[in-house]
Amino acid sequence: MSTAQTADRTIFERRESEVRSYCRSFDTVFTSASGSTLTDTEGREYTDFLAGCSSLNYGHNDPDMKSALVDHITGDGLTHGLDMYTDTKADFLRAFDEIILKPRGMDHKVMMVGPTGTNAVEAAIKLARKTTGRKNVIAFTNGFHGMTLGALALTGNAGKRGGAGGVSLNDTTHLPYEGSLGDVDTLELAREMLRNGSSGIDAPAAFIVEPVQGEGGLNAASKEWLQGIAALAKELGALLIIDDIQAGIGRTGSFFSTEDFGFEPDMITLAKSFSGMGLPFAALLLKPELDIWKPAEHNGTFRGNTHAFVTARVALEKFWKDDSFAKEVAEKSDLLEKRLTEIARHIPGAYVKGRGMMRGIDVGSGELAAHICADAFDKGLIIETSGAEDEVVKVLAPLTTPLAQFKAGLDTLEDAVSASLSLKIAAE
Amino acid sequence: MSTAQTADRTIFERRESEVRSYCRSFDTVFTSASGSTLTDTEGREYTDFLAGCSSLNYGHNDPDMKSALVDHITGDGLTHGLDMYTDTKADFLRAFDEIILKPRGMDHKVMMVGPTGTNAVEAAIKLARKTTGRKNVIAFTNGFHGMTLGALALTGNAGKRGGAGGVSLNDTTHLPYEGSLGDVDTLELAREMLRNGSSGIDAPAAFIVEPVQGEGGLNAASKEWLQGIAALAKELGALLIIDDIQAGIGRTGSFFSTEDFGFEPDMITLAKSFSGMGLPFAALLLKPELDIWKPAEHNGTFRGNTHAFVTARVALEKFWKDDSFAKEVAEKSDLLEKRLTEIARHIPGAYVKGRGMMRGIDVGSGELAAHICADAFDKGLIIETSGAEDEVVKVLAPLTTPLAQFKAGLDTLEDAVSASLSLKIAAE
Amino acid sequence: MSTAQTADRTIFERRESEVRSYCRSFDTVFTSASGSTLTDTEGREYTDFLAGCSSLNYGHNDPDMKSALVDHITGDGLTHGLDMYTDTKADFLRAFDEIILKPRGMDHKVMMVGPTGTNAVEAAIKLARKTTGRKNVIAFTNGFHGMTLGALALTGNAGKRGGAGGVSLNDTTHLPYEGSLGDVDTLELAREMLRNGSSGIDAPAAFIVEPVQGEGGLNAASKEWLQGIAALAKELGALLIIDDIQAGIGRTGSFFSTEDFGFEPDMITLAKSFSGMGLPFAALLLKPELDIWKPAEHNGTFRGNTHAFVTARVALEKFWKDDSFAKEVAEKSDLLEKRLTEIARHIPGAYVKGRGMMRGIDVGSGELAAHICADAFDKGLIIETSGAEDEVVKVLAPLTTPLAQFKAGLDTLEDAVSASLSLKIAAE
Amino acid sequence: MSTAQTADRTIFERRESEVRSYCRSFDTVFTSASGSTLTDTEGREYTDFLAGCSSLNYGHNDPDMKSALVDHITGDGLTHGLDMYTDTKADFLRAFDEIILKPRGMDHKVMMVGPTGTNAVEAAIKLARKTTGRKNVIAFTNGFHGMTLGALALTGNAGKRGGAGGVSLNDTTHLPYEGSLGDVDTLELAREMLRNGSSGIDAPAAFIVEPVQGEGGLNAASKEWLQGIAALAKELGALLIIDDIQAGIGRTGSFFSTEDFGFEPDMITLAKSFSGMGLPFAALLLKPELDIWKPAEHNGTFRGNTHAFVTARVALEKFWKDDSFAKEVAEKSDLLEKRLTEIARHIPGAYVKGRGMMRGIDVGSGELAAHICADAFDKGLIIETSGAEDEVVKVLAPLTTPLAQFKAGLDTLEDAVSASLSLKIAAE
Repeated sequence: MSTAQTADRTIFERRESEVRSYCRSFDTVFTSASGSTLTDTEGREYTDFLAGCSSLNYGHNDPDMKSALVDHITGDGLTHGLDMYTDTKADFLRAFDEIILKPRGMDHKVMMVGPTGTNAVEAAIKLARKTTGRKNVIAFTNGFHGMTLGALALTGNAGKRGGAGGVSLNDTTHLPYEGSLGDVDTLELAREMLRNGSSGIDAPAAFIVEPVQGEGGLNAASKEWLQGIAALAKELGALLIIDDIQAGIGRTGSFFSTEDFGFEPDMITLAKSFSGMGLPFAALLLKPELDIWKPAEHNGTFRGNTHAFVTARVALEKFWKDDSFAKEVAEKSDLLEKRLTEIARHIPGAYVKGRGMMRGIDVGSGELAAHICADAFDKGLIIETSGAEDEVVKVLAPLTTPLAQFKAGLDTLEDAVSASLSLKIAAE
Repeated sequence: MSTAQTADRTIFERRESEVRSYCRSFDTVFTSASGSTLTDTEGREYTDFLAGCSSLNYGHNDPDMKSALVDHITGDGLTHGLDMYTDTKADFLRAFDEIILKPRGMDHKVMMVGPTGTNAVEAAIKLARKTTGRKNVIAFTNGFHGMTLGALALTGNAGKRGGAGGVSLNDTTHLPYEGSLGDVDTLELAREMLRNGSSGIDAPAAFIVEPVQGEGGLNAASKEWLQGIAALAKELGALLIIDDIQAGIGRTGSFFSTEDFGFEPDMITLAKSFSGMGLPFAALLLKPELDIWKPAEHNGTFRGNTHAFVTARVALEKFWKDDSFAKEVAEKSDLLEKRLTEIARHIPGAYVKGRGMMRGIDVGSGELAAHICADAFDKGLIIETSGAEDEVVKVLAPLTTPLAQFKAGLDTLEDAVSASLSLKIAAE
Repeated sequence: MSTAQTADRTIFERRESEVRSYCRSFDTVFTSASGSTLTDTEGREYTDFLAGCSSLNYGHNDPDMKSALVDHITGDGLTHGLDMYTDTKADFLRAFDEIILKPRGMDHKVMMVGPTGTNAVEAAIKLARKTTGRKNVIAFTNGFHGMTLGALALTGNAGKRGGAGGVSLNDTTHLPYEGSLGDVDTLELAREMLRNGSSGIDAPAAFIVEPVQGEGGLNAASKEWLQGIAALAKELGALLIIDDIQAGIGRTGSFFSTEDFGFEPDMITLAKSFSGMGLPFAALLLKPELDIWKPAEHNGTFRGNTHAFVTARVALEKFWKDDSFAKEVAEKSDLLEKRLTEIARHIPGAYVKGRGMMRGIDVGSGELAAHICADAFDKGLIIETSGAEDEVVKVLAPLTTPLAQFKAGLDTLEDAVSASLSLKIAAE
Repeated sequence: MSTAQTADRTIFERRESEVRSYCRSFDTVFTSASGSTLTDTEGREYTDFLAGCSSLNYGHNDPDMKSALVDHITGDGLTHGLDMYTDTKADFLRAFDEIILKPRGMDHKVMMVGPTGTNAVEAAIKLARKTTGRKNVIAFTNGFHGMTLGALALTGNAGKRGGAGGVSLNDTTHLPYEGSLGDVDTLELAREMLRNGSSGIDAPAAFIVEPVQGEGGLNAASKEWLQGIAALAKELGALLIIDDIQAGIGRTGSFFSTEDFGFEPDMITLAKSFSGMGLPFAALLLKPELDIWKPAEHNGTFRGNTHAFVTARVALEKFWKDDSFAKEVAEKSDLLEKRLTEIARHIPGAYVKGRGMMRGIDVGSGELAAHICADAFDKGLIIETSGAEDEVVKVLAPLTTPLAQFKAGLDTLEDAVSASLSLKIAAE
């Protein structure tokens, strides 16, 4: 590392809050990014298996999105338009309608929320409570739904919850996610608890569930379990909110992660890769009969990011007009599963978790997982951990990663695993 | 209105949630924007006295920001970098350090929060509670701090609060803002209530206050009142959070709206115009001794919007390196006050409110204010109301509005007032 | 103090919780009590100016109540009957109907709650929330309403509130009681705050107010202020709950402390002296149209204490059939006011507070008040302090105290004041 | 029923709140009670298998308690003494110390709380939160702990919870009680949920558990399960509160219902039969190291009911000085189990639940159970239902019921079951 660069970095230590985190694991200064590759001030290149925590499903700086965005900017297209009508928003909505919603038979409406996932979650639970007249929202073990108080109450992680500084995170009930209690049938458990009028669990306004728990350790709920939750919600007069912020937009293979599961979510939260290019953007899809909002009853200055409308539209047109992208992702997912399974065999007790292009290896300890990721970074691969104990090495590569780079990245991961295991064995 | 355009618009009705609001007042489809002018699909031009609710203090599509942003994009600068180190972030932080913080003797650190004002507020109150071990946050009558549950609890408006769907908005106490109780000395009232150990108001973690209440009716607190609140906070061991989301970034004349007031806020929330060009961006400034966050204890996928770093830096360099911009704003503010005072004279009982370039006329009723704004829009001026009863016609023009256009806009406002008054008199 | 007695007392230290309190101020072991006199193990007699915190308005062991209770017990009258019908309850209800409710034109129904004041308060606020569909209950500075979580949220004292161990005491708003803010018109303030739709104070389900604040320092609200609160409650669609637990049952001269004030409370809480003889008993009076309870929706094992029905009935028949008792209390109240005013003159800055037989002297400091009470106890008078800083010496003598004993007690108080002042002067 | 009596009863309808409940099932007016027999205005006698919901474990009006109480009253013993020292309290504490605590090796201190079970529960959870600095209290499915807001939050029943009128019942987590989820190991489930740092369930201050759920359907937890909960509490740094309000004081055979279970509760709540004779009385036992209360930090006017001290002492001396009473209860419990098992055989699908003298038959439906109880009442037996669906016929006879009367009561129950079944069969 050059002296110049070191000097550069003091600005972060001096002026950026201690809350910063990824920069601690990936301790270099990045300057550019294209596709699945990041480059730092030293000119070193890194393959990105983190993809902005699934915000960059189409990779960095997709040339078509870039070009459309540059055209928009140079043509004085609106940057900030509150929630006024713009041709850019109309174009986006039409593309979303025709390419995504209509073909899937969905009549959901789009609520432009503040451009963060947590804002979509907050809007969803406010609406669920308003429409049902109930307060309790059911969330699940290991779930992550955001950091503002309403969403944080739905989040499982004790450390995150502790950030609230001691205020009660109310009006929620946390039930065990599928598989989180060994052999216990957690769906049956949810049924028993919620059907019992003396359980002490108040009648729910909604269930909120991530089909794959991105932060919680890549736990992937089965189709049957999610169908059961959907049916239970209906039985109880509660709404089903699918939090597709991390698992949606192709990450599991299809645009929505449960679109082939045979039930219709009342609401779906979208953020991360929804803008296509990593621009801040979030939305809540809601069934039209739930759309009882009064104008501005939930608002936010940056709702409906116009730049994001441009890139999101390009993403829809480029990747979702036919099924070729989905097929490509499916093939890559198979490859990923195969390779991770092979790698996991080297690690005693390890196993592969997740679904689609959202998979990882539970290596049994946060310490080992951290070693692997650190070693991978030294070898030019950006990859992070997940799970309650950070015990899962998580692969979240851009879905568009060229096959050769994808394979090379997995090779690097394998090398990092080997190196970490050797180190571990040497230490024992 | 052409048939084509009408057809265009059905997409909004069909697919966008009923929560949309500004599009109802400004019912046309905008296509481009530059400086203080918006253009719609019909080629009609509008002068913008709304400025994205003060998110566009430097106007639309500032050419230098555009150019820097286009260079960044075409050069494959990062779009999305989580909170990793980038040269773009370093450049922004350095500019903010040198142009803003250092000259003002501020040692605050910058926390990159999710790119919405409400997220900055949520981070601030979480931190206040964590550091003080107390839970109660004092907010003020007519205040607006955001729509996620933690921030919503601090917001005064009953309609907004009702959106929570019935969950309790806890751990807050609302006290009267300066001037909200006629002649009552609200500072003394706050002192009495909070010094009384039997008041039933729990010891506060923090006070959060907007120096000028943008949504609450352009109430501007005096220097003395704010000094008193600052002193009271200190006396009680509570933190002072200045919510400068709407009043900051030059809107009242200086970069921070209380920088000349002789006290140092423990935290300052920034959003809206902080990115310069209207891109989603928010941050929390906090005194270094408060920076006890653990890494990622508060996080968010879009914290630290890289595109916004580019434009925010340009804005700092272009407008704040010397005091010429501030002087220009001060002159425009004087003009604004003068003209509004003249206009208010025509309206029985009306009076001018606010501070700097954040001023309006309390016209006595929401109905009249709505008439004025609607008539102004017909005449090509975008302007909105504010206040508990929407009784204030609020001028939030870009600070950079050319003088001729600014005067013309005020002329249009005067015409709209006259027209609305005639209509009103005719109706009576 | 004899050795024997000292030995006796170790049982308290060994086995009774540190939460015990009055025994610390009145550090002897009492053995019997009659009228206004307590006797301890040493045979020493004490005049009781505490009266069980107004639970013994008719003095200790009234002979008629004793006799009726003994008859009931020896005749195998029910002791515990849950809320089944008993002739004893019927007799009590009939007496209450004919002697108290009917003559005052009150059609309230009686809800038998658990035999504690706090239980009556909890029932009242539950019902207010159920019937209005709102959650916020307005309480006042320096108010005391009980120690269970719902009632504690309405209580002002920070020390008491702190006992909750950090859980939020929610869904309440504390406004200043009459006179608690110097010259500020607190009624007008309440109006302004509650009529403002952007105050951040949610629409109230109810106001709960003590007409005289027994624990809060003997603040007595004026008729006009209470009328104003009653009218404001009606205007806002909120219920008015008069907490007459300490001020009711003759303490201020009339059976209910606001019965001559020209408004009708929606609910009245009663406890303390309601049983007549100091037996645990509490009830909630509620307007019949509010009586939407489902059977047992609020219950409690000891609701409707049968022994208390016996003594309460005797008390009603003995003291309230005509106005002779009320007149006697009125005369005694005048005497009390006169004597306290004289005594207060000796103390720089002191003044008399309260109403009826619920009066005291604000002596300016808790330290001096404690001295006075301790000295009075040494001289054979049981009397305690009140107020946020324990700065009020509070006279709560049984209303039946014989005139000679009452005067003698006041003489003792005067002596104690003199002694404490001499001591204080000597110390300075 | 005589006309006179009918007239009598109108007072209840006119003046007592609709919340009254037992009088609806047992629709007559009672006049006296002795042992296990109640007598009404018609002179009709009823055997009491309800016993004031276990408040009359020693029957009605025990002659020794009566006699001691009458002596106390006629001798001008104190009736109301706040928490001052009295010889009566000393005598009670000494008896409790010597007869109950010392022989069981318990060093708990006694906190005199307001004379209701719910007050003991509120005090317990306040103290648990204060001492641990945590807020979450774990309660169990079908549990009942009281009706004031803090205790209600721990109560399972949806109807009772609904009485709160919509405020959140916070800072509690409800986990399944033993056996409430079929074959699921609920202890293991509790362990898994609470050990998982991402479960969303905040670290508990305490567990509160009824060893037998009196209102919840006579579910009796096993020794092993309770030991497991005790161990889990210790592991997690949480306190164990045994709610022995209904199951304690001999109801299950021993004074405390878990005294032979090999663990030491941190706190035990007592009420109901603690006074011996049905007088309002409650207390919280707490380990001395938890006794961090400041004087009066939790208080209440009727804490330490002096009349109850008298009868409670007599009860301890009469029934608990040796093991003869316990043996008698054990024999009666065996008989009860045998007879209920026989009766249950007649009812398809029915089975016996409970422990000791706290047993009943789950008859499968609330309708049938109501029929049986109504028929039993017609036949002179007072007995009620329990359980989430009121599906359990619950026998709570006084422990002192003479054997012949006990058997006769069970015969009556058997007759009522037969009659109800015949009726049911006839109807089908």
